[in-house]
Amino acid sequence: MTAHPWLPGLLADPLIGDSDESWPVSGSEVKHQNGYLSLRVDTIVDPQGGEHPRSVVQPHGAIGVVAIDEHDRILLVEQYRHPVARRLLEIPAGTLDVPDESTQAAAARELAEEADLVAEDWESILRLLATPGYSTEHWEVFVATGLSAVPADQRTVREAEEADMAQWWLPFGQAVDAVLAGRITDSMTVAAILAVQAQRAR
Amino acid sequence: MTAHPWLPGLLADPLIGDSDESWPVSGSEVKHQNGYLSLRVDTIVDPQGGEHPRSVVQPHGAIGVVAIDEHDRILLVEQYRHPVARRLLEIPAGTLDVPDESTQAAAARELAEEADLVAEDWESILRLLATPGYSTEHWEVFVATGLSAVPADQRTVREAEEADMAQWWLPFGQAVDAVLAGRITDSMTVAAILAVQAQRAR
Repeated sequence: MTAHPWLPGLLADPLIGDSDESWPVSGSEVKHQNGYLSLRVDTIVDPQGGEHPRSVVQPHGAIGVVAIDEHDRILLVEQYRHPVARRLLEIPAGTLDVPDESTQAAAARELAEEADLVAEDWESILRLLATPGYSTEHWEVFVATGLSAVPADQRTVREAEEADMAQWWLPFGQAVDAVLAGRITDSMTVAAILAVQAQRAR
Repeated sequence: MTAHPWLPGLLADPLIGDSDESWPVSGSEVKHQNGYLSLRVDTIVDPQGGEHPRSVVQPHGAIGVVAIDEHDRILLVEQYRHPVARRLLEIPAGTLDVPDESTQAAAARELAEEADLVAEDWESILRLLATPGYSTEHWEVFVATGLSAVPADQRTVREAEEADMAQWWLPFGQAVDAVLAGRITDSMTVAAILAVQAQRAR
């Protein structure tokens, strides 16, 4: 390990990355639980023996889909999000709440449910931890191509916020513009669009 | 509004983006509250009059800092994150928990606390909603340049997970590689690195 020549910190190995680790938990109490998420407070023990309470929100994991048509347009769904009191543009996404379902199958299910689309080709491009400071939530993002419509008589009836959803097709480059201009702000959607952009630039 | 010529959905205006909206709340109950976050369940009323319970986790907002030195190295801090039982590489970040503090002042405070650094130049590059399906959390990411060290006798004593923190400098292009290879997974860090990359590619 080499120190930075003029600032605090060390020069990193090029292959540096996240790694598994686990500190002891001396107590844990579930404070709330419903069908969508639970909240518990764990007491963790640091390497010096100090104890610290840590809130842990445990939602289901989730997947997102960057669906791109033959003219390089990306699909964005527009949905009301109550916690932030905004109508957001997002990639189709959903939670891993069906037992034994693979992440790719969940992605295909959400793409059909939210956008009436079927994709022939799937590529996993990004795995993320949503808010690891207080939540267990993990995300996987797929790129879906070779798109066709779900037959009209097999489409999902959408309810609540989803009844109100609109589906928009936007040239991919304009989606990158919208992210950098702050017009698209959902963090999974932003990371997904910018990852596809970065992959293309390689 | 024009329909997509062969798939479900509509062609978007180039300036499409998120927008404010607010549905009525017919009931709200706080289920848990501590110094870091609260959890309430709201009952929202959809435009058809249907009522739906929605969990709302309310953490403080947060800021993140992409600190870049004169040789185009980015600073990443390595920190244990209990909810995901991993040691993560992240940009310096922290919560907006000081009353009346601006987001840029919070960013400067966190950069000093987590990495013993002061920056001369600040640019706000990204505003995000972390997990708008169930949380109110908003993020702002800054790029910080013109870096120098906090004098040794003015540095913060770091505690708990932060006592254990390491600070790493990685050539910026290698940080993009690490994101696309899945070695860096914290969602704010991923979005921040890829946004700087996309901005440079314009």
